[in-house]
Amino acid sequence: MLYTNIAQLATSAPGPQRGAAMRELTVIPDAALLVRGGQVAWAGRRQDAPSWADECDLGGVAVVPALTDPHTHAVWAGDRLADFEARAQGVAYETILARGGGIRSTMRATAAATVDELVALARPRLAALTRSGAATVEVKSGYGLDFAAELRMLEAVGVLARDVPATLVPTLLIHVPPPEGRAGYVREVCEGLIPEVTRRGLASAVDVFCEREAFSVEETRAILTAARAHGLGIKLHADQFHALGGTELACELGALSVDHLEASGEAQVRALAASGTVATVLPGVSLHLGLPAAPARSLVDAGACVAVGTDLNPGSAPLSSAALALALAVRLCGLTPAEALTAGTVNAAAALGLRDRGALARGQRADFLALEDRDWRGLVYTLGGSPVRQVYRGGQPLGGEGL
Amino acid sequence: MLYTNIAQLATSAPGPQRGAAMRELTVIPDAALLVRGGQVAWAGRRQDAPSWADECDLGGVAVVPALTDPHTHAVWAGDRLADFEARAQGVAYETILARGGGIRSTMRATAAATVDELVALARPRLAALTRSGAATVEVKSGYGLDFAAELRMLEAVGVLARDVPATLVPTLLIHVPPPEGRAGYVREVCEGLIPEVTRRGLASAVDVFCEREAFSVEETRAILTAARAHGLGIKLHADQFHALGGTELACELGALSVDHLEASGEAQVRALAASGTVATVLPGVSLHLGLPAAPARSLVDAGACVAVGTDLNPGSAPLSSAALALALAVRLCGLTPAEALTAGTVNAAAALGLRDRGALARGQRADFLALEDRDWRGLVYTLGGSPVRQVYRGGQPLGGEGL
Ligand SMILES: [Zn+2]
Ligand SMILES: [Zn+2]
Repeated sequence: MLYTNIAQLATSAPGPQRGAAMRELTVIPDAALLVRGGQVAWAGRRQDAPSWADECDLGGVAVVPALTDPHTHAVWAGDRLADFEARAQGVAYETILARGGGIRSTMRATAAATVDELVALARPRLAALTRSGAATVEVKSGYGLDFAAELRMLEAVGVLARDVPATLVPTLLIHVPPPEGRAGYVREVCEGLIPEVTRRGLASAVDVFCEREAFSVEETRAILTAARAHGLGIKLHADQFHALGGTELACELGALSVDHLEASGEAQVRALAASGTVATVLPGVSLHLGLPAAPARSLVDAGACVAVGTDLNPGSAPLSSAALALALAVRLCGLTPAEALTAGTVNAAAALGLRDRGALARGQRADFLALEDRDWRGLVYTLGGSPVRQVYRGGQPLGGEGL
Repeated sequence: MLYTNIAQLATSAPGPQRGAAMRELTVIPDAALLVRGGQVAWAGRRQDAPSWADECDLGGVAVVPALTDPHTHAVWAGDRLADFEARAQGVAYETILARGGGIRSTMRATAAATVDELVALARPRLAALTRSGAATVEVKSGYGLDFAAELRMLEAVGVLARDVPATLVPTLLIHVPPPEGRAGYVREVCEGLIPEVTRRGLASAVDVFCEREAFSVEETRAILTAARAHGLGIKLHADQFHALGGTELACELGALSVDHLEASGEAQVRALAASGTVATVLPGVSLHLGLPAAPARSLVDAGACVAVGTDLNPGSAPLSSAALALALAVRLCGLTPAEALTAGTVNAAAALGLRDRGALARGQRADFLALEDRDWRGLVYTLGGSPVRQVYRGGQPLGGEGL
C-alpha cells in the first residue's frame, strides 16, 4: 500500500538517539509512504514515490511514527478517587495511608481481583493509550500482595496482549517490600519468582523500585543480577525522591532504562550520558503530584538518550494519553517538540529493548499516526484535544476492538 | 423523559456559589433525573422518582451538570506552531515578536480571513470543547487589526451559534491597542464600535485587556463605562502580569467577571471576595507558559466566587478541553474536586450572567453529562482521557453535528 497526500512526514532516525541528535528530525513535505509486509518499504517526497497499484489518500494531514509508552502500571483494581480528593483537600499522604488508602488499597483490591477482572479493568485504559497514539505499551506488575497476585497481573497482561490492538511489553516490577522479612523476600524474588516468570515467559524485563521506602541499592543489585542471569532485561525506578545510587547501579549493570529521575543531580545526569541506558522521564507525575519534574533538558544537553512515558497508574499519574505525556514533557521538562517526538518514538522503544519501531525508515515496523493537523508539531502542541486522527499498526488502520 | 440507572448524580446548588459553599455538592447515589421541556423537572433517588412513561437507562455511570467554558478566544486564523517551537527552544517572546510571530501574526492571519473561513476554522475547536463537556461556551473577538475585522470575528461567532451544538456567548474584547493614536482609538471604541455591536446584537458583553502593554486602568474605565451605558455586560482580563488596579475597577463597576488573576495579591483577593464579580482562573495558561497559577485557593478561602475557563487561544493556551481545565485547576490552582465542579458549572455560567444552568435542580436547563466513571470525581481525576461519555443539552443527547 502506498499512502499518499501526506502534508508532512516527520521522523527521527532509527534506533536510540542521544543528545543533540534527538532534535534532528527528517521532515518531508508532500510525502508518501510505502508499506509492504507490515514494514516501511520506502518514505519520501510524493513526486519520487515508486508507482504502486494500491494507494490510500491520507487527506492532507501530517504523519509521524506511532508512539511507544515505555512505562505504565495499567493493570490495577479499585480506585484512588477518595485519596485524590483528600490530597486536594490538603490531607498528608501519611494520613491517607493510615486511613487505609494509598498504594496498599490498590494492592488489596488488585489481590482480590481475578485475572478476568484485571483484564476487563485494564482494557479501556489500554484502548485510551492506543487512541492517543501508542502502538506499543509497556505494562508492569507490582501491585501484588504476594507472588501469586504478581503472577495474576502478568497473566492479565498476557491475555490483554492477545486482545488489544497495541503491542504490549510485560515487565515484572518488584515494587513494595513486605513489612517484615525483607532479606528472605529478596531471596525468594531471585530464586523463586524470577525463575518462574522466566520459565513461563510472563515478562521480558525486571524493574525494581529503588527508594528509601522501597528497595535499597544492594537489594536492587541482587534482584537485577538475578534477572540478568535469567536473560531478562533490567530497568529501574530510581531517583524519584532521593538519589540513592540506583541510577549509577543501573548504568553499571547495563539497564535498558532508568525511570523517574526527578531527584537526579549532576552525577546521575553524567552517569546516564556516559551509558547506553535510556533516561525515561514521567511528566504526568509532576503535574499530578505538583512535584519537580525530571531534568530532561540537562539530560539531553549532557548527551543522554531521553524517553517519555505516561506512568499511567491510579495514585501518582492518572494520565491515559501518550501524546499528552509528550506535550507535558515540552511544558514541564524543557524538551523541544522535536526532542519530545524522538523521546516518544525511537527512544521509548529503545527503553524496551526494541529497535524495530519508532522511525519511518526502510525496514522499520509500519506503525504510524495520521494526525488531525497538517503540521507534525500539532501532536505535542494541543492540550486536551485529540491530535491523533488514526493509528496504523503494521500498516493497518486500527479501529473497532474497543478503540 | 426519566433518566435512570445513574450510579451517582452530583451537583452544586443553582446560582453562583462563593467560598466554602463551593464545596457543598449534593451527591445522590442510585439516582434518576426527570426532564420536561428541556428543563430539569425533578432529580433524586431512583426509588423516589415519579413514574414516567419514557425511561432512558444511562448505564450505571455518574451524571453531573454540563460545563460552561466562560473564557475562550476560539476564533482565529493562522497558527502559532513555529512560535511554540521557538519558545520551547528558549527563544524570548520579544524575539519571536520581532521575527513577525506572536499575537500580531494571529491578528494578520485573522484579518485576512473571511467570515466563512473563520467559521470553518473555529468549528472543530468548538466541537472539541463540547465533546469535553461544555454545553455553553463564551467566545471573544480581539484579534481584529481594525474594527471591521473585530466585527467579522463576532459575525463568525453568530454563524457558529446557529451551527454548533453548544450555546455560544459572544464577547467583544478590546485586546490590543494600536501602535499610535490610543486616545482616539479608545474614543472610537466607545462612540463607534460599542454602539454598533450593541445595535447589531453581536455581543452580550465587553471585555478589556487591562495590562501594562495593553490598556491602562483609566482607558479600561472609559470602555467599560461605555459598555454599561449600552446595556452590555462587562468583564476584564486583569492581573495577568501586573496588578494595576483593573480588578478593583471591575469590582467597583459590577463586572460579571475578572479573568486571569495570576498576579493578584491580597488586596485583589479581598476586593473580589467583597464583590459580586466572579474570579475566573485559567490554569491552561499556567501550564502552557510555565508561569505561576492564579491564587484560586486563597480566593475561595477568602469567600470569592471562582470559575475556571480554558482560555483556548493559539498563543498562551492551546487547551481544548473544559474537563481538563478543571483537572488542571485541581493540580495547579489548589481547588478541591468539588470546588472545581462548581467553578466549571454554576460559577462559570454566572461569569456569563447566566443563572439558568449549571445545576441539576428543578427549573434549570437540562444540560448534563453522562461520565465514563461511576463516580463524579472521575471528571476531574483523569488527565488526557475522555471522562465524558455523552453530553446532553436541553435533555437531548448531542451527536453528529461534527461531534
Ligand atoms: Zn512507575
Ligand atoms: Zn483571554
